[in-house]
Parts: sequence; C-alpha cells; structure tokens
Amino acid sequence: MWIAELSRRTEVPVATIKYYLREGLLPAGESVGATRSRYGEAHVHRLRLIRALVESGGLSLARVRSVLAEVDEESLELHDVLGAAHSALIPDDLTATAESRRRVDELVVEHGWLVHPDSRDLLLLAGALDALDKVGYHLEDDLLETYAVAATKIAEAEVSHLPTDDRQRIVESGVLVTALGGPILLALRRLAQQNASANRYGTSRLSHLNHPPAGRA
Amino acid sequence: MWIAELSRRTEVPVATIKYYLREGLLPAGESVGATRSRYGEAHVHRLRLIRALVESGGLSLARVRSVLAEVDEESLELHDVLGAAHSALIPDDLTATAESRRRVDELVVEHGWLVHPDSRDLLLLAGALDALDKVGYHLEDDLLETYAVAATKIAEAEVSHLPTDDRQRIVESGVLVTALGGPILLALRRLAQQNASANRYGTSRLSHLNHPPAGRA
Repeated sequence: MWIAELSRRTEVPVATIKYYLREGLLPAGESVGATRSRYGEAHVHRLRLIRALVESGGLSLARVRSVLAEVDEESLELHDVLGAAHSALIPDDLTATAESRRRVDELVVEHGWLVHPDSRDLLLLAGALDALDKVGYHLEDDLLETYAVAATKIAEAEVSHLPTDDRQRIVESGVLVTALGGPILLALRRLAQQNASANRYGTSRLSHLNHPPAGRA
Repeated sequence: MWIAELSRRTEVPVATIKYYLREGLLPAGESVGATRSRYGEAHVHRLRLIRALVESGGLSLARVRSVLAEVDEESLELHDVLGAAHSALIPDDLTATAESRRRVDELVVEHGWLVHPDSRDLLLLAGALDALDKVGYHLEDDLLETYAVAATKIAEAEVSHLPTDDRQRIVESGVLVTALGGPILLALRRLAQQNASANRYGTSRLSHLNHPPAGRA
C-alpha cells in the first residue's frame, strides 16, 4: 500500500509516519522509483504498536525507540519477554539510601522472587520509599507487603495470559501488557480509592453507577 | 530562615526555589526590607512535597500546581482527600468507544464502587482497553477482574493507613500515597513479572537475591 493508505488504516497522519521513518522507529518501505515506497501489514502493525505505547502507555518517543530495539532483538532470551519494556519505563537518574535498598532486598528475598540483581526497579523502589520518608510519610511494612502480594497476583495473571505460539507475538504482548496494564491498574486503584475514601470519610457526592444500558449482553 | 538556609535544608537550589516562588508554587516569605524575605517550616515542608511529586511521582510542574491548588482548597470535602491528586495524574485528551465504556461501567457496578460518575479514570480505563484492542491484544475479563480485585485491596490498605488527626495532613498524605504509591506498585509488579516470566519460560540469568548483609536488625 502507499503511505496514504497506511495513514488511513492506522489513523496516523502522513507527516507523523514520515517522521517515524526518518527517526528509524518504522522500517523503510519497499522503494518503488525514486520517491515512492510501498508498505505492508508489518508497517500497519508496528505503527499501531507505536501509537499504543505513546498515547496510552505515555512513553516518550525515545523510550519507544528503546522498547522497539528490544522487541526486534532476536537474540533476547524468551524469559526476558516481560523485561523488554521495563528499562524503557524507568527514569535514568536513580539514587536511594542503603537503608531503603536493604528494605527492598529483604522484601524480594522474603517473596522468593527471581530478579536481575542489578534491576533498576530495585533502585526505583528504594528511591520512592526514601522520597516518602523525606516528606514525613513512612510507608509502613504492612502496606508495602500489601503492594507486594497484589503485585505478585497481578504479574502471575499477566504472564499466564501471554500467548505461547509465536516469539514475536509473545514479546509484543509482554511489552503491551506491561506498558498499558500499568495505567489500567492505576486507574482502577484510583477508582477503588474513591470508594474506600467515601466509605471511610462519608460522602454525599459520590454514587453507585447505574447499570449500563441494555444492549450488550 | 533566609533562602540560603531553606535551600540547604531542602537540598533544592536557590535558583529553583526562586523559580517556584515566581511561579506561585511556593507562597512568598515574610518580607524583610526591600529585597530579602524570611521563610518558615511551612516552606520547608511545601518544598519537600513539591520535590517528592516531581522527582518520584514524575509529575510535571503544571500538574504539581493543580495538585497543590486542591491541597490548599479548604472547602474540599474530606472524602475527596484521595481525589486531590487524581485529576492531576490523568491526561487531558481522553476518548473511548461506547463498548469499552460499558465494559468499565459494568466492572464498577459489579464491584459496588462509589465513584464520581464523570470520573476521568473511567474514560482513561476504557481508552486503554481500546488501545490494547486496536493492536490486537484483547484484555480478557478474568485479567481485568484480577486487576480490579488487587486494586480494591491496595486502595483499602492505603486509605486505612491515612492519618486521622489533622485535615492538612490527611490531604497531603493522600496526595503522596496516590502519586508515589503508583510508581512503587508498578516497580513491584515489574519485579514480580520478572519472577513469573522466569518461572514460565525458564532462565539461567536471573537469581534469587542474597540475604542483605547483617546490620539492619
């Protein structure tokens, strides 16, 4: 297909597609003459992946680039399928106190998790605990444990739902569920917080949603 | 204290403090003569809150400004304590299909959650489900339910840990736990995903962490 059809099918403007091509996020099409190229289903697919990561995952283009590099890295071992998006989702400049790092390491040991010992999430986590401490809010052990137990259940469900057929599909699904499952989980948590807060502090302004109009079942 | 001491105590550069003052994120100090001002403990506290939201919460200054506006809004009802940070954490341009909106509404109804019927999280959630569908990854009902159950447990624990004494402290703690609890939860989930992925696909590269060195207990 020509670039106009690629644009129509993906709802991505032609100028944006050309930008992604120049930036190397999207592989070049097949050259037809000096100025035109043809594109295929792989381009449709890749464009949709980029848009999902940018629009719903909230990733910058630089982050998307490193995620895609990992998706395309055939030598990546399959157990790293879910790690592919991880480094791209974590800021670069992380620091934490030794005390918080010990607290995080202990948590991981207690849960028996297999993790990369130099995983930047360990540092990110410790840094966030430090940041809370610094403003006078100490995250209690039992709340941290609640997070860890919930995270375990979520991660197990997510990984068990990954496809098993095709390497590329497993990697892409892993990236998607990591990048977009995050916003989904946090949105659900905020809704549940509204409910918990209403139950604790009382409210007249919130209400149960009405059952959605018929027509779905 | 003078601005230099405020800077020293909060580890925020003087130039940054002056920028926050100009932008109205930090209230002005008490004027002493034409060019000098004195600052108090409230300024230390507010600066630390801003830095925690920016550095660990990942909020832009514009988002921080709207969070602080809600924190300072005395007329805000207490049950909205946890809602204070919410709108600031959600992007502005949200759309979703009616089908996904119905799916989200049904989920909320089934869980009996009290929520603002026009909460933007409902739309954010539906939009994220659409984005996954669009790239050919349908989030199955049982995985969505796993997210919702985990979100409920997390939210209840978070709200039950909020202080009860002072209105300002409740609101600030609610903002902090919402903004920083998110990155903490997502980091734990990525670590748990590493473990789940290693268990499913096998690995030679991951390892259990060693017990942290003694000296903590």
